[in-house]
Amino acid sequence: MISSSFPGLERYLESGVAEVEAALERSVARFEGGFGAGVDPATRSAVRHGVLSGGKRLRPVLCIAAYEACGGTREPGAYDLAAALELIHAFSLMHDDLPCMDDAELRRGRLTTHRVHGEEATILGGAALIPMAALQALEACAGLGCDEARARRVARRLMEASGAGGMVGGQWLDLLGEGRTLTKNELDELHRRKTGALLAASVEIGAIAAGASDDDVEAVIGYGQAIGLAFQIADDVLDATASAETLGKIPSDAELDKSTYVAQYGLADARARAREQVDEALGALDAAGLRSDALEALARYVVERGK
Amino acid sequence: MISSSFPGLERYLESGVAEVEAALERSVARFEGGFGAGVDPATRSAVRHGVLSGGKRLRPVLCIAAYEACGGTREPGAYDLAAALELIHAFSLMHDDLPCMDDAELRRGRLTTHRVHGEEATILGGAALIPMAALQALEACAGLGCDEARARRVARRLMEASGAGGMVGGQWLDLLGEGRTLTKNELDELHRRKTGALLAASVEIGAIAAGASDDDVEAVIGYGQAIGLAFQIADDVLDATASAETLGKIPSDAELDKSTYVAQYGLADARARAREQVDEALGALDAAGLRSDALEALARYVVERGK
Repeated sequence: MISSSFPGLERYLESGVAEVEAALERSVARFEGGFGAGVDPATRSAVRHGVLSGGKRLRPVLCIAAYEACGGTREPGAYDLAAALELIHAFSLMHDDLPCMDDAELRRGRLTTHRVHGEEATILGGAALIPMAALQALEACAGLGCDEARARRVARRLMEASGAGGMVGGQWLDLLGEGRTLTKNELDELHRRKTGALLAASVEIGAIAAGASDDDVEAVIGYGQAIGLAFQIADDVLDATASAETLGKIPSDAELDKSTYVAQYGLADARARAREQVDEALGALDAAGLRSDALEALARYVVERGK
Repeated sequence: MISSSFPGLERYLESGVAEVEAALERSVARFEGGFGAGVDPATRSAVRHGVLSGGKRLRPVLCIAAYEACGGTREPGAYDLAAALELIHAFSLMHDDLPCMDDAELRRGRLTTHRVHGEEATILGGAALIPMAALQALEACAGLGCDEARARRVARRLMEASGAGGMVGGQWLDLLGEGRTLTKNELDELHRRKTGALLAASVEIGAIAAGASDDDVEAVIGYGQAIGLAFQIADDVLDATASAETLGKIPSDAELDKSTYVAQYGLADARARAREQVDEALGALDAAGLRSDALEALARYVVERGK
């Protein structure tokens, strides 16, 4: 069911990511010329580093796809709204990588923000991304002609997803997971909060901003939650197969972190579970009669992508 | 010019602070029952510790006073709006006290949040206060019947004040100040950003939410900026006199941090400068024909308070 307007996933991603990068450049420039004008150079550099270090830009691309699926048209203002989700994602990565959290040296093959610009600048710059995202979303909504109720819903969902229900909740379960094996339900809950909250909010915000009906918004949330879970299972599968390459064999149970889908389900069943989630995501759209080549292709991409 | 409705500053503060504390309790309870429900116990405790550790609650009290001065009535929803400013203040204190920033052990005679609940919980919990404040302000505006334009302005000002223009900007100049002596202009700019931004936003948000005219909002901003500066000068004076008690003499220039108002102006002139700012604050209200016993008394309190 490839419609003539969908250029295929590769070209869709290519043009979408380019637009998102342009929107993120605008975000950083607005910050630097606006309320970040008097900020110290290190914090300004930390913001630039954290926001403009590549990545798949999956959240804003999903937001735009949902926005279009619900009747919106791709325009710079829509990308500004979508980019707000990436600002929140960047905030969470900057803070997650800190020495007192994951103490990560590298991300996407580059030194992490705190390794380049220091801990202090990373904490300050990361936290500054939250109000930056809120301001950007509010302005983008006004520019897109969202009415009051929709603009408020967008701001509310963005802030909820930035808050504890999202990353912070997951962080906890993450740490818990280091000490003992999570049950399957806990594992789902962990990822529903950690990755799922922001992925689901991405499509939900796109749908709300486009003025979708309540049923369509619900369908899109169902889609977002399912692909959020699929995303994480795929991540675990990628990690396990990468370890297999390094180890020269499939890692044994003892070598695997118990609190992963591969450890809990085995590689084949984990893969099957990811595909089930993709089916569930597409089923949610289908049940509401929402057709979107982009959302369909993105759901499959989530489990078929590389790391 | 004490009107019959103003009970005197002491009683005004007492009842105002009690209402603010109640609103902050509601904030924390909403967080714990809402988007903080799945959060780890340490982060939840860090939020509670950072938000409910006393203090003068000057920002929300100023917000309410401006709200009333511009025609609003004191009601729980107005305190919820006002409390959002204290959440932002609490976020900035939690992060400022971190080991990689001021590395403070005590605040208001109690152990700082990171000393009790750890660095990670303090970073996560502190950052969570930003979306918490944004959500609370949006909901409070809706409850107070603010129209769309006002609610957006409130959210925008709150986010700007939480962002780099506020604390982060000041943080930089603070650090700069450790290395060399700031000029008088830099010193004003430092405090305009650091303390002033959130104090001015407090009264501005109160005025906007009450539906004040543009002129009245401008007057209230002028008031807020002047008392912000007065507040910081008074702080420096209090620090210098406290050091004098400890040292048994007025500290010499060499013993004083150069980048303080006392070092730059001397004790007597610094005191005079604080009083000038109070006059400027009252003059701004006067010029707009805004009469408020509470705002007048609070302006004087800012320079006459203890630490």
